[in-house]
Amino acid sequence: MDEGFTLWFTGLSGAGKSTIANLLVERLREIGRHVELLDGDEIRKNLSSGLGFSKADRDANIRRIAFVAKLLSRNGVIAITAAISPYKEIRDEAREEITNGGRNPNRFVEVYIATPLEVCEQRDVKGLYKKARAGEIEHFTGISDPYEPPEHPEITVSTVGETPEQDVDQILGRLAEMGLLPAQPAGVYSEDEEALVSERLKNLGYL
Amino acid sequence: MDEGFTLWFTGLSGAGKSTIANLLVERLREIGRHVELLDGDEIRKNLSSGLGFSKADRDANIRRIAFVAKLLSRNGVIAITAAISPYKEIRDEAREEITNGGRNPNRFVEVYIATPLEVCEQRDVKGLYKKARAGEIEHFTGISDPYEPPEHPEITVSTVGETPEQDVDQILGRLAEMGLLPAQPAGVYSEDEEALVSERLKNLGYL
Repeated sequence: MDEGFTLWFTGLSGAGKSTIANLLVERLREIGRHVELLDGDEIRKNLSSGLGFSKADRDANIRRIAFVAKLLSRNGVIAITAAISPYKEIRDEAREEITNGGRNPNRFVEVYIATPLEVCEQRDVKGLYKKARAGEIEHFTGISDPYEPPEHPEITVSTVGETPEQDVDQILGRLAEMGLLPAQPAGVYSEDEEALVSERLKNLGYL
Repeated sequence: MDEGFTLWFTGLSGAGKSTIANLLVERLREIGRHVELLDGDEIRKNLSSGLGFSKADRDANIRRIAFVAKLLSRNGVIAITAAISPYKEIRDEAREEITNGGRNPNRFVEVYIATPLEVCEQRDVKGLYKKARAGEIEHFTGISDPYEPPEHPEITVSTVGETPEQDVDQILGRLAEMGLLPAQPAGVYSEDEEALVSERLKNLGYL
């Protein structure tokens, strides 16, 4: 049976987590894997209504994501989490939970989407940085709330000067190196996929 | 790939939901399936801390169980939920959610553990009915809070005069009839399983 694991994305708002995660979902489904994307907003809606954005509430939300990712991972599914998850301590707690106290070390893969703050703020796809700078959003990661980068992520993606598709290739390559996926053939994409990538690149302001 | 689905147990406190569900998990794992038991208490601890036992809070808890069961079921896993889930309306909502608005009707199997109240109260394994009768527990299903039995459950298990192992055989048989599992060979159990069954029967006061 296929081994499940969690790809735990972390990075600033606008770093490209969702874009890369969505493309990755498609690529992994193409090779026949069960994949579930645990999007921060969807989890908040379905599991964490009532929680806000204080540190305690953010931590509670991340713990719930970790719990669901654990259930999926230990049942052969690839869970991809794409919440900002700015705090190192709680990410380490998620690793502990999902690897079952380190007994299944391969079940947690931390993927650092390392787009620098300046670049995220310059892109500002959703206009959130502008609002945060104007003081209209409280506890905004990178502006009025800390972001603690991972110290030893299994995978680091820079995104700057790369297309999301290249970032996905890099992630898939690393997963193959780690023995979590079979070695990949060079990427050949369908017209639909190419169209999708172009659309996303446009949305991100690359094209 | 194996098709996932949810076995949505419903029944009074002490009806035998957890006992039957735990045995079922073992039997399904033996035939190579990924199975996850979503126990009411574990879900409350991990996803619903802060929620109480009012109707609104119970509903919120059940919605969260349904969300997690949906994620598992659509990824090839058999999710078994074993919360009391006393309200018909919210069970129907769970069915709607998990079957994707009826588009995957086989993904939700309602399993009514139909042990009568008198029998549950007589067994009173955890002493909860005594406390509820004494007014020490509020909103106790069947005593001070309603239990709405399902009208058209896919599977009904009476439990009275049957061993949990027989109940499990009955459920597996029905799932095979429904095409959700391959047809089962007659049950042959290992010593460990027999010991486990005996222990559970003792705990339930059958032996």
